[in-house]
Amino acid sequence: MSSHMEAKTVVACLQFEPIVGELEANLQKGLELIEKAANDGADLVVLPELSDSGYVFETRDEAYSLSSAVTDSATIRTWADVAKKRHLHIVGGFCERQDDGLYNSAAVVGPDGLIGVYRKNHLWGAENLFFERGNLGFPVFNTRLGRIGVLICYDGWFPEAWRLCALQGADIVCVPTNWVPMPSQPDHTYAMSNILCMSAAHSNSVFVAAACRVGTERGQPFIGQSLIVNNEGWPVAGPAGKTETSILMAECNLADARRGRTLNQFNQLMRDRRDDVYAEMLGAEAKPGWY
Amino acid sequence: MSSHMEAKTVVACLQFEPIVGELEANLQKGLELIEKAANDGADLVVLPELSDSGYVFETRDEAYSLSSAVTDSATIRTWADVAKKRHLHIVGGFCERQDDGLYNSAAVVGPDGLIGVYRKNHLWGAENLFFERGNLGFPVFNTRLGRIGVLICYDGWFPEAWRLCALQGADIVCVPTNWVPMPSQPDHTYAMSNILCMSAAHSNSVFVAAACRVGTERGQPFIGQSLIVNNEGWPVAGPAGKTETSILMAECNLADARRGRTLNQFNQLMRDRRDDVYAEMLGAEAKPGWY
Repeated sequence: MSSHMEAKTVVACLQFEPIVGELEANLQKGLELIEKAANDGADLVVLPELSDSGYVFETRDEAYSLSSAVTDSATIRTWADVAKKRHLHIVGGFCERQDDGLYNSAAVVGPDGLIGVYRKNHLWGAENLFFERGNLGFPVFNTRLGRIGVLICYDGWFPEAWRLCALQGADIVCVPTNWVPMPSQPDHTYAMSNILCMSAAHSNSVFVAAACRVGTERGQPFIGQSLIVNNEGWPVAGPAGKTETSILMAECNLADARRGRTLNQFNQLMRDRRDDVYAEMLGAEAKPGWY
Repeated sequence: MSSHMEAKTVVACLQFEPIVGELEANLQKGLELIEKAANDGADLVVLPELSDSGYVFETRDEAYSLSSAVTDSATIRTWADVAKKRHLHIVGGFCERQDDGLYNSAAVVGPDGLIGVYRKNHLWGAENLFFERGNLGFPVFNTRLGRIGVLICYDGWFPEAWRLCALQGADIVCVPTNWVPMPSQPDHTYAMSNILCMSAAHSNSVFVAAACRVGTERGQPFIGQSLIVNNEGWPVAGPAGKTETSILMAECNLADARRGRTLNQFNQLMRDRRDDVYAEMLGAEAKPGWY
């Protein structure tokens, strides 16, 4: 017995170094890697956070000058063109301008064009000076390949974010990211950012494809270590190196994510949630006092 | 500047093999290890799940015969006596009988006696044949040492459970557990159960002290690998071995958990939660359809 849903989806994470301010060159660099991944059979390609603008802005004017509205974005046009030409799905970070401000966003693009946008809900550090907090919730996009959720970098520190993707049936969560070094990270094991992906993949039975940038921008280093994790929580590609451009690829049977939520005759990861208990304490109605 | 809150708390996890049905011997084995840990300076001692009864029951009659009510429990009395004598806090798993059924519980005991009980909210596998689901929420106990949350084994697969402890200000989450092998676990890295503890410690800034049993009971192997994790998510003791009895000990400054939630001038882990976004989709009111 097999079905289209059982087809392996070839997932690719593109790790590279965008340069702040060099919109055209960043797009071109991404495009070259997308074409390479397509040549190697990729179906779904993930690019880093803010892959068109770069990350470390000095002024709001600079951030605005590097942003674009979805309806008039060279970034989205470029990705839509190559997605159509190479029959790809692409999830990539871009600097989005809206009437009410800037968003640290990711576009989900398919062979038929733009599918949707995710706006980062949890802003990290100085992002708070330039961006508004996401206002589109945690959308999960139903596509030909399967259901795609999107989180960006610091979002991954919030287990609620992964859970909300999984509760909507996400098969894979794509993570455009610009992970930065953590103070107490030991050398001998996975980066904590990787461990958060593994843990979330395991406890939600979702695949995770995280594409991180590399390089140091205006004094801020980024850590690379992009990876693709299966729905049991184990890396199937990567972690990539800490500094080099690279393309990670893995065949993922996204059907495993759906089946994998049933653990035995008694346990199913989502059904076992104790909504009755959580409801009293989670959510806007109940804000416990200890922060 | 220092304060009592800055004092290091010596945390101990006791890893050993209870034998199903041998209540008296199991208590004695636990007691010997508690005394050893106390000799080495322990302030807070954690014992495995169902450390008095053993785990793999064959019948409900057997499970009932190994259970005790909090008000008349040799287990609680034993722990209260040694806690008083050695000035300890103890968190240990026991088989609890109530008028309305059995619970897979943990007692929190201090020098002045029983502080409270936690009842496992997420039952694993055949536990569903013998136990009722926890009905005490996720209590956090304010003690002389700091705030103590408790989770038991499969509870740790639910990020909501850790979060609810942290939102109530837990400094440390004690985890009596009987972890079992996972099918796809690679040999070369942390057990997934350990990774879940590390991830939860990091994203909530809580210490985690997990005490797992060892041995094989009626065909069911357990994996040991107890560990103590700091509030940044890294092991400070263990993981212990997979099969041997052992006492893990680590000095933990529980004040670090509270301070550690503030990451920089913009970010505080609990405050950065997007309650406004989560509320729409988490909790009893909203049950999304895809499981």
